[in-house]
Amino acid sequence: MSEEKVVVLNFWPSMFGARVIMALEEKDIKFEYKEEDVFGDKTDLLLQSNPVHKKIPVLIHNGKPVCESNIILEYIDEVWNNDKTLRLLPSDPYEKAKCRFWADLIDKKVFDAGRGTWTKKGKEQEEAKREFIETLKVLETELGEKFYFGGNETVSVVDLVLISYYPWFHTWETIGDFSLENHTPKLMDWVRRCLARPAISKSLPDRLKILGRVSQIIKVHEFFYGY
Amino acid sequence: MSEEKVVVLNFWPSMFGARVIMALEEKDIKFEYKEEDVFGDKTDLLLQSNPVHKKIPVLIHNGKPVCESNIILEYIDEVWNNDKTLRLLPSDPYEKAKCRFWADLIDKKVFDAGRGTWTKKGKEQEEAKREFIETLKVLETELGEKFYFGGNETVSVVDLVLISYYPWFHTWETIGDFSLENHTPKLMDWVRRCLARPAISKSLPDRLKILGRVSQIIKVHEFFYGY
Repeated sequence: MSEEKVVVLNFWPSMFGARVIMALEEKDIKFEYKEEDVFGDKTDLLLQSNPVHKKIPVLIHNGKPVCESNIILEYIDEVWNNDKTLRLLPSDPYEKAKCRFWADLIDKKVFDAGRGTWTKKGKEQEEAKREFIETLKVLETELGEKFYFGGNETVSVVDLVLISYYPWFHTWETIGDFSLENHTPKLMDWVRRCLARPAISKSLPDRLKILGRVSQIIKVHEFFYGY
Repeated sequence: MSEEKVVVLNFWPSMFGARVIMALEEKDIKFEYKEEDVFGDKTDLLLQSNPVHKKIPVLIHNGKPVCESNIILEYIDEVWNNDKTLRLLPSDPYEKAKCRFWADLIDKKVFDAGRGTWTKKGKEQEEAKREFIETLKVLETELGEKFYFGGNETVSVVDLVLISYYPWFHTWETIGDFSLENHTPKLMDWVRRCLARPAISKSLPDRLKILGRVSQIIKVHEFFYGY
């Protein structure tokens, strides 16, 4: 495996990029990180690697690009799958389908609701907060007494997908004025267990930096758009 | 395999349900079909099988539910995978990732744009038509000279996902006043090749029945909402 070349194109606050980096770190795969400024000019490498969506993250493995974060996670798990590496998906088809179901549900529900906690106002903002918290409650129930979503021993794609949103929780709680510790305390214990894993804690963006950037975006928006 | 029990919960015009049925038919797996009226009362079986989304299709295999159409397709391909059955996904991780990418892209782009061709008006309708046709052109390029998206020999999940939208094309073309034959003639040849497969043609809903039902919905909408 000495000649493997792995490159990740990412934009630092992205939850979609963070999960790819965590997966590589969890499996101890060396990679080169390339920052893309998604609000600036996209690089030729990004445009060539993901010509349809033109979005990060992209994993480029020995020159071949793989796009869409959860597809990248499955690719990583299938390619680097020797006995020594952690497995992100179970081999049993039914357990695997359940894993995919929860990973898919998180992106379908958490992303939009979370964003709505700071981009929306009034009733719509309350509705976004309610949906976000309800989704986390459903996930807390699914976690149950397990150490991780992947079981007591190891993290799975469900853990990586959900924890990839964690750096944003602080922004959503602060601007939305609510505390997940009050609503889903057991899930917050799970967050702490995940953060105790070096591969996870070192790969996630700084939550204060995200809040700072979002606060700036809101100020600019209010100045120009007046609400 | 004689004691397998497979049940599919579906709503007849659904593209998401149709692809599951086609996969079962392609693999010659016997199943029981149960119609769900998604605009009426949902059955207890649906609510118990898919308590989070409460949506069809659901595949219930020996009592165990699998939800979300593309997750079901992967499950079917992993469970029924002996040498005699057709494989819907390649075994090579990179080829598999590409398959997943295109299947995912179709649902992300075709569903919303297609619906917009009849639920939207004026400029927004034109934009939906433009995006729908553009997406099909990208797919036509990806198909290239291959017989199917899965290669020259066999259909893949990409074929099943895209052809599951075909019964709706007639509605979108009729109401949106455009012809795919003019825009993507090679893709229309691919449609005809897919329809020549009995497993596909017998599993798809009747396109005239869909147009009839949509025309009715539009009349009711115009009567009550006035536009």
